[in-house]
Amino acid sequence: MGTEPAHTVTRYDQELDRLRGIVARMGGLVERQTAQAIAAVVDQNEEAALEPPELDVEVDTLERDAESLAIRILALRAPMAVDLRLIVAVLKITGDLERIGDYASSIARRALKVEPLDGAMSFSALRNMGRLVQENLHKAIDAMACNDSERAMEVWNADTAVDELYTAMFRELVTYMMEDPRKIGPCIHLLFVAKNLERIGDHATNIAERVYYAVTGEMLPAVRPRGGAARKGN
Amino acid sequence: MGTEPAHTVTRYDQELDRLRGIVARMGGLVERQTAQAIAAVVDQNEEAALEPPELDVEVDTLERDAESLAIRILALRAPMAVDLRLIVAVLKITGDLERIGDYASSIARRALKVEPLDGAMSFSALRNMGRLVQENLHKAIDAMACNDSERAMEVWNADTAVDELYTAMFRELVTYMMEDPRKIGPCIHLLFVAKNLERIGDHATNIAERVYYAVTGEMLPAVRPRGGAARKGN
Repeated sequence: MGTEPAHTVTRYDQELDRLRGIVARMGGLVERQTAQAIAAVVDQNEEAALEPPELDVEVDTLERDAESLAIRILALRAPMAVDLRLIVAVLKITGDLERIGDYASSIARRALKVEPLDGAMSFSALRNMGRLVQENLHKAIDAMACNDSERAMEVWNADTAVDELYTAMFRELVTYMMEDPRKIGPCIHLLFVAKNLERIGDHATNIAERVYYAVTGEMLPAVRPRGGAARKGN
Repeated sequence: MGTEPAHTVTRYDQELDRLRGIVARMGGLVERQTAQAIAAVVDQNEEAALEPPELDVEVDTLERDAESLAIRILALRAPMAVDLRLIVAVLKITGDLERIGDYASSIARRALKVEPLDGAMSFSALRNMGRLVQENLHKAIDAMACNDSERAMEVWNADTAVDELYTAMFRELVTYMMEDPRKIGPCIHLLFVAKNLERIGDHATNIAERVYYAVTGEMLPAVRPRGGAARKGN
């Protein structure tokens, strides 16, 4: 854009910043949704479980705003190299964020259908899983905001622990249900909560992969390290 | 592109066709993965269950190919209007297709862990769900290949039936497990299979939404019609 008048370049930068801002806002919203959904389950927090569905709509609207702005920038500014990769990454990442918001809503909707299980580790396992997933999600969103490929790589390597916690929970819950069939309903909702958390972890990893590519121009290997759950189909 | 030499326009058209071709190939692959995964479960077809994981890798590779080519076209051809929307749609749709492939693999991995349940409707309900989801997926991919916004609209309206079948299955399986706790393991895998099918249906709907926008320039409403499952958090 070197030959264009300075005010055009500035407006272009402003548009890129606005695009980054929309994604950062989306990231902040789905982080909040995820944190509240986990709290709703593990603390049996009714208020957090009843988070208004408007948040979902806001996340969807932001995804659309990002897409419209990206198309506008592509059409009017013909961005190149890093900027172009950033815009493509934004289009992909907003899809992951929208999905994360969806999973968080699904977790929150189940919060009041689960219940603490006497003598079972599952609530504390879920708390650990929730902490790890939130950490990874936060790091992925941070890596995106700071164009930090090393941080992205950290997220990419950290997801195995989440998968392993999920597998352990799956086994415990099946045993628990067999011993006390009256708990089948709550246990199934707990299993789905754990599965949704694992999926949120997957999407955080996707975001990390995309940030890594946008920043470095290199793609991470197609097959990433995975824990027991994905391999064994639990 | 009217002022450019004819051979450049031709190469540009060829590139767009190649991009469409990659997406069509990806669509064909995940349709096949989905069909095989459903057959693996409902027909207890061991061969279909053991589909080699190379298909997953091929789908991932195609997603990356599509992204690289899209970036190349954006950088070198500065596409406008419909072409630009097509490219953005491709970037989004390949994400949905990759996810569908992932869910199909997850279904196939569970195929040999489920079993027909005496007197339960779940296998035939699953067959119906599978048929509906496959139909919707096929229509969505078709709408994409033919730039057909009406067909996209059909898909968008059809997902409610899938959600309702899922909700009915969820209830039946919970009752079944309570009556026969020895069947808890297989029933849970069946539940997850149904959930994954429902998610494939969601992604088919997403594809339809994106095709509709790419073709018409208009977005479908942010909130789409949904059946019982999504609303009630089952």
